[in-house]
Amino acid sequence: MHILITGAAGMIGRKLAARLAADGALAGRPIERLTLVDVAAEPPRPGKFPGEFDAIAGDLADRAVARNAVAKRPEVIFHLAAIVSGEAELDFEKGMHVNFDGSRALFDAIRSVGDGYRPRVVFASSIAAFGAPFPDTIPDDFFLTPLTSYGTQKAMTELLLADYTRRGFLDGVGIRLPNIVVRPGKPNKAASGFFSSIIREPLAGEEAVLPVDESVRNWHASPRAAIGFLIHVAALDGKTLGPRINLTMPGLCCTVAEQIAALRRIAGDAAAARIRRAPDPLIARIVGGWPARFDARRAAALGFRAERTFDDIIRAHIDDELGDSIAR
Amino acid sequence: MHILITGAAGMIGRKLAARLAADGALAGRPIERLTLVDVAAEPPRPGKFPGEFDAIAGDLADRAVARNAVAKRPEVIFHLAAIVSGEAELDFEKGMHVNFDGSRALFDAIRSVGDGYRPRVVFASSIAAFGAPFPDTIPDDFFLTPLTSYGTQKAMTELLLADYTRRGFLDGVGIRLPNIVVRPGKPNKAASGFFSSIIREPLAGEEAVLPVDESVRNWHASPRAAIGFLIHVAALDGKTLGPRINLTMPGLCCTVAEQIAALRRIAGDAAAARIRRAPDPLIARIVGGWPARFDARRAAALGFRAERTFDDIIRAHIDDELGDSIAR
Repeated sequence: MHILITGAAGMIGRKLAARLAADGALAGRPIERLTLVDVAAEPPRPGKFPGEFDAIAGDLADRAVARNAVAKRPEVIFHLAAIVSGEAELDFEKGMHVNFDGSRALFDAIRSVGDGYRPRVVFASSIAAFGAPFPDTIPDDFFLTPLTSYGTQKAMTELLLADYTRRGFLDGVGIRLPNIVVRPGKPNKAASGFFSSIIREPLAGEEAVLPVDESVRNWHASPRAAIGFLIHVAALDGKTLGPRINLTMPGLCCTVAEQIAALRRIAGDAAAARIRRAPDPLIARIVGGWPARFDARRAAALGFRAERTFDDIIRAHIDDELGDSIAR
Repeated sequence: MHILITGAAGMIGRKLAARLAADGALAGRPIERLTLVDVAAEPPRPGKFPGEFDAIAGDLADRAVARNAVAKRPEVIFHLAAIVSGEAELDFEKGMHVNFDGSRALFDAIRSVGDGYRPRVVFASSIAAFGAPFPDTIPDDFFLTPLTSYGTQKAMTELLLADYTRRGFLDGVGIRLPNIVVRPGKPNKAASGFFSSIIREPLAGEEAVLPVDESVRNWHASPRAAIGFLIHVAALDGKTLGPRINLTMPGLCCTVAEQIAALRRIAGDAAAARIRRAPDPLIARIVGGWPARFDARRAAALGFRAERTFDDIIRAHIDDELGDSIAR
């Protein structure tokens, strides 16, 4: 099997590539070739992956780059390339270029291969495709009214993916990822960044900034769960989905206060005391328009699984990133 | 006031231009200038319109054409330009080009004027933005899963319009038009064309072809009602809409059998006998994925009005197009 990952130098992309290299197989078939694309730089060969390997540094919205990425006809494409919500809000044109035009160029490159080529395309969408006002629990068939440009670009790409799939140009599944916590590494420009940093920084003995009220809720899953979703969706039979190929992923609904309580249980009061309150109206407005609780019953019925407590999410972070070295 | 109409040579565009020329005013303000754009040809000056008049023949997806269309800063823009559902299904690239890229180029041209320019943009969307499976009655906040490329392009443009409005680039309202019957003139390539021709041709003494079963339902309004929606929406205060600026318009839910019964009541058995059954699987599939009954309560509360019986729709056609000369 030949697998392509776009946005392969991002946090999820690197973890997915490492997992695929470690597994050596996907959906029961050995992985013979891996192609990794990222706009920032040529992604390195993951781990000890022994197969054929191509790395491409380039902007997918450049149609030559998109054509090159699919030239060797990957059978499964994980389309993760995107700029994050905060950046897409601050730089409208860059958001449209990367998040929408890049996706469209990739889908068109696939279409132009022709000759019966119809890969599984897994698109990393986002719950930011939805926008307030919300019912208490948001059903799978709830209206898409994003309140950010990022969410708009994701929703438009979902529509495009569904139409390309319906027409047989590709075999797409979009998965609306929850907020992914705890993100390892440095903070990025995502408006959602603080959901991770209020856990990650205190566990590392550092101060974190909380820009919103503790009553703010969100829909969370760990990076480990996100990789699990991507691996699971690659093997899903598209025919079972019908025309609604974009799925809200399961997650855990909790407040910032509940996140902090879990941190306190696992790492003690000293860790929780490293969180400093510094309200930021822009972030509060962006996050306030996001949904917090879903009925992800379609995804659950299809076998997708996320964590059930925030303690589990913190433990996944400690296991995967920190070993036992946490600051108490 | 300066008004721009795109797709001004189309059926709705011509009727709207004629109505504006006859009224001489919109939203209580005199119309001083009218700019009409169409890809097919320079639209003629409507009726006896005495004000400044510009006609542009060109493709809106050409950014120079879009910039030219808004160069004199029209305060109200009716964006009607589109290719119809059947054509967008048969020619995917043309549909994307006209229905999506054309809309995006227009919105970007408005944005690039800058200097506080923020016109009311009325976008003619379609109930084809929704897709089966449906509840019996479709609420205003129902999920968008179009089952045609036309519907996909309309839904993507709705998302774009909402984001451009939210960001203050323009002041948009999208109205999802019902199926418009009875369309005057020649059949076009719309999959929905037969809903009109089974009334129009028999009233003119000619044979019409019915490609679907008589049990097929649709959501109808007359061209007269559609012009009324457009006139009404131009004066609507965008602030009252909140972030959900795309509105399902009111209409009349009825079956083909009910349409034919109304024709029989108004024009007699001989007229109804001019309908020939010739099932067409492509049209049946496209139309079968369309919604048939809405709860358009938001639009009703905002003062939008449609016909309440199909007899009224036929009478509007006779009044507006035929005078008394109908074939019995």
